[in-house]
Amino acid sequence: MSVVRTPIILVNCKTYSEATGRRALELAEAAEAVSLETEVCIALAPQIPDIAPVAASTSIPVFAQHVDPVTPGSFTGHVLPEAVKEAGAVGTIVNHSERRLRLADVDAVVARAREVGLTTVVCANNAAVSAAAAALRPDMIAVEPPELIGTGIPVSKARPEVVSGTVDLVRRVNPDVVILCGAGITRGEDVAAALHLGTEGVLVASGVVKAKDPREVLLEFAQAITSA
Amino acid sequence: MSVVRTPIILVNCKTYSEATGRRALELAEAAEAVSLETEVCIALAPQIPDIAPVAASTSIPVFAQHVDPVTPGSFTGHVLPEAVKEAGAVGTIVNHSERRLRLADVDAVVARAREVGLTTVVCANNAAVSAAAAALRPDMIAVEPPELIGTGIPVSKARPEVVSGTVDLVRRVNPDVVILCGAGITRGEDVAAALHLGTEGVLVASGVVKAKDPREVLLEFAQAITSA
Amino acid sequence: MSVVRTPIILVNCKTYSEATGRRALELAEAAEAVSLETEVCIALAPQIPDIAPVAASTSIPVFAQHVDPVTPGSFTGHVLPEAVKEAGAVGTIVNHSERRLRLADVDAVVARAREVGLTTVVCANNAAVSAAAAALRPDMIAVEPPELIGTGIPVSKARPEVVSGTVDLVRRVNPDVVILCGAGITRGEDVAAALHLGTEGVLVASGVVKAKDPREVLLEFAQAITSA
Amino acid sequence: MSVVRTPIILVNCKTYSEATGRRALELAEAAEAVSLETEVCIALAPQIPDIAPVAASTSIPVFAQHVDPVTPGSFTGHVLPEAVKEAGAVGTIVNHSERRLRLADVDAVVARAREVGLTTVVCANNAAVSAAAAALRPDMIAVEPPELIGTGIPVSKARPEVVSGTVDLVRRVNPDVVILCGAGITRGEDVAAALHLGTEGVLVASGVVKAKDPREVLLEFAQAITSA
Repeated sequence: MSVVRTPIILVNCKTYSEATGRRALELAEAAEAVSLETEVCIALAPQIPDIAPVAASTSIPVFAQHVDPVTPGSFTGHVLPEAVKEAGAVGTIVNHSERRLRLADVDAVVARAREVGLTTVVCANNAAVSAAAAALRPDMIAVEPPELIGTGIPVSKARPEVVSGTVDLVRRVNPDVVILCGAGITRGEDVAAALHLGTEGVLVASGVVKAKDPREVLLEFAQAITSA
Repeated sequence: MSVVRTPIILVNCKTYSEATGRRALELAEAAEAVSLETEVCIALAPQIPDIAPVAASTSIPVFAQHVDPVTPGSFTGHVLPEAVKEAGAVGTIVNHSERRLRLADVDAVVARAREVGLTTVVCANNAAVSAAAAALRPDMIAVEPPELIGTGIPVSKARPEVVSGTVDLVRRVNPDVVILCGAGITRGEDVAAALHLGTEGVLVASGVVKAKDPREVLLEFAQAITSA
Repeated sequence: MSVVRTPIILVNCKTYSEATGRRALELAEAAEAVSLETEVCIALAPQIPDIAPVAASTSIPVFAQHVDPVTPGSFTGHVLPEAVKEAGAVGTIVNHSERRLRLADVDAVVARAREVGLTTVVCANNAAVSAAAAALRPDMIAVEPPELIGTGIPVSKARPEVVSGTVDLVRRVNPDVVILCGAGITRGEDVAAALHLGTEGVLVASGVVKAKDPREVLLEFAQAITSA
Repeated sequence: MSVVRTPIILVNCKTYSEATGRRALELAEAAEAVSLETEVCIALAPQIPDIAPVAASTSIPVFAQHVDPVTPGSFTGHVLPEAVKEAGAVGTIVNHSERRLRLADVDAVVARAREVGLTTVVCANNAAVSAAAAALRPDMIAVEPPELIGTGIPVSKARPEVVSGTVDLVRRVNPDVVILCGAGITRGEDVAAALHLGTEGVLVASGVVKAKDPREVLLEFAQAITSA
C-alpha cells in the first residue's frame, strides 16, 4: 500500500494544527481507511518531525513537504533526503509555493531524491514554470496557481485553461511526467474535473485537513476518481 | 534528566551520516550513559526527522537544530515550533552559521519558542553579533567563529579573546543569558578552557559525532566539567 | 550640504514610479530647495541605478537603499559598498523591512560601510530588534513597525510607546547611536511627535514620494523640526 | 551599436575593482573600440550603480547583472526593471550562479523584462537547468558550470559535452533561444570552440576584466568570431 500509484490524492498537512503531531496520525488513519476501501492511492505529507511516527503507524505512502539539496555533512537545520527516507518517507514535495527553491536547487533536489529513492512532486505556479520543472525530469509535477490556494475556488473548475495549458506545455517537454493539479479543491467534482483535464491526481491541503470530517471528504474525492 | 541544566554539552548532529536515523539513537544512548555516570547535562540536537524517535528512546534533553518563525497555518515545509515540541524536543538551536536567519526572524523565533516552551540557543559568529543576539533575550548564546568550525582548532584555546570578549560584551547587554562557545572543540582541555573563560558549556558537532568513540569523547568532556 | 546632520529627514524612494529615474532628480531638487531654505538636513535614498545621476545633480546627502556584505570580487548582481560610494552616496539604509538581512550580514554590512566611509541607518521592526541592531554599532537606527508602513497611521502618534520603548532599550545598549523612527509619517505634527519622543529624525517614503506636492510636505516636516 | 546582435561577447564586470566606477567606463571604452573595429557585438554588464554613467558614455549595449521580479511600488533596495531601463540598460543577466533566483522568480523576471523591453540572458549551471530555463522563453541562455567559473579552464574546450549537450537539450524545448556559454574563457580559441559547439557567443568575466590588457583580449575574442 505504501507504493505510489496513479491516480493519486496527495494531502499536504502544511503546519496546520489540525494535522500536527497526534492529529497527523489520526488523519493518516482516515486516509488509510479510505484508501483500503476504495483502492485509490492516498498519500500524506505530514510535517518533517511527524514523518517517522506517521510512517510507523500507517501503510499509506508518506511524503516530506520539503527536502534540502544537501548531502550528509556539515549542514545544520537542513532536511537531508537520506534522513526522511530512513524515517519512512517514500517521496517529497519540492518547490511548493510556500517553500520555493532556486532553479538550480530544484534540479539538485530532484537529482538527490532520485539517488536516495524518493519520488518527487515538483510544484509550479503556472504552465510555463510547469514546463520548466518538467525539463528537470521529476516523477510528478503539480500545478497550483498561488492565488487560489486555500480559497475553495477550484483550479480545475475556475481556471481549467491553466490545467489544460499546463498539460499541453508539459507534454511537449516531457511525455512521461505525471501531472497533478491543486488549489481550491474541496469537492469530488473538482477532482473529477482535474482528471478530465488530463491530470492524474490532485494535491490538496485545507480542503481535506480543515474539513469537519476529513475522512468523508477523502471518500468523496476517491469515489470521484473511481467513477471517472 | 531531560531538564536543561548548566554547565551543558550540546551536541549538534548536523546532517552527518554518523548521526542520522538509527545512528542518532546510538549517539543518544552513549550521551545518556555518560550523563548518568557524570551527572553533567548532555543534550543532543538530531536532525528534524529524528527528533521523535530520539526523544522517545532517551532521557537526555533533545533540541531541534532549527525552527522557523511560523505559527500553525499555511506554511509548507517549514519547521513549526509546536511540532518539534510535540515530537519531544525541549529546545532549539537558532541561527547556526550553517542556517543563518534574518535579524527580525531571530527575534521572532525566540519569541515563538518562548510561547511554546522551547529553550533557545542562539548562535553568533563574533562578539558583536553575540551582544546583538543577547539583546533579543534568548536563554543561551553560543559564539562560534565559522572559520574554526570543523577544524579541530579549539576556539577556547586558539582564540580565547573571542570567547572572553563575547562574555564581556554580552554581559553589558544581558546579565542573565547563558553563554556557550563552540568550534573546533575536540578535547577535555578545550572544554575546561571554555569554562575558565566564563562560558557555561560548549556546542560541539564533529568533535563528538565523527570521533571513533563518541562515548569516550563525551566522557572526557564531562570529566573536564566536573573537574573544573 | 551633503554632510549628514541631525535632526534628519531621510526620504526612501523605494521603487515608486514617482521617484524613479528623471522623477528622482525632481524629488532631489525639491528636497534641496527645502533644505537650503530651512537649514534642516534632508537626505534622499533613490534606487541604486539612480544614485549616480541624483548625486551628480544635487547637494543633499544621497543614501543607497541597500548594499550587500560583499567585497570587490566574484559577486554578480550584488551592490558593492565601494560602488555606491564612488557613485556619490554618503550612506546606506540597511535591513529595511522590505529588504531584511541575516543577523550576521547586518553586522558585516555595518563593518563594510564603516571601512568604505558610508553612514549606516539600520532599520528594525520593534524595540528589541532595535536594541540588537544598536549592539552592532551602526551610525543610526530607524524603528519602523512594518504593519504601519504606507498606512498614513503615524508610529509617533499611534504607537508612541514603540518609539519611546525603543529609545529606552537602545540607550542601555548604545548611548551614541542616532535614533530615527518611521512608518505612517505624513504630517508635520507626526515629525514633531517623533522628536518629542526622543528621536533625532524620521525615515519617510510614501508620505513624501506619493504626495501631490512633495516639496510642500517636506517644508511642513522641516518647519516642524525647526519649531521643535 | 547599442542593438544586441549575435554572435555576442557579453562581459560581466561582477564587483571586480578593475571594473567598478571610473574603471567600468574605461572598460566600456575599450569594448566599444574593439566592437567598432571588428563589427562584433560586445556588450557590458557593469554593476547597477554604474549603469547610468556607462550607458551615457558608450554606444555598446549595456546590461544589468541582475534585476528583481518587482513592479513599481513598495520595494526597498530592489532593482526595478524600469529603473535599469531608464538608466540606459538594454538587457539583463538573470540567475547568474552568484545570484541565483527561485524558479518562479526566473519566470517572473523574464516576463517583467519582456514587458519593459529588456533582453534577458538566463544563466544555468548544466544542460538540464538550461532546458528548464529555455522553457521560460528568455531571449538567451548562458550555460556556465560553476566549478569552472574564474578558473581559466574553458568550458568549451575542457567540457565540450556540457556545451553540446546543452545545445541538444535546449533545442528540443525551445528552437529559438540564443545559446551562449561561459566559464574559464580566456583565449580566442575558447571562443571559437564555443561557436563550433553550436553557441552564438560567450559570457565572460575575469578572463577580460582581470586581464592585463582587456582590449587586447577582447580583440582576440572578436577576431576568433569573425574568423569562425
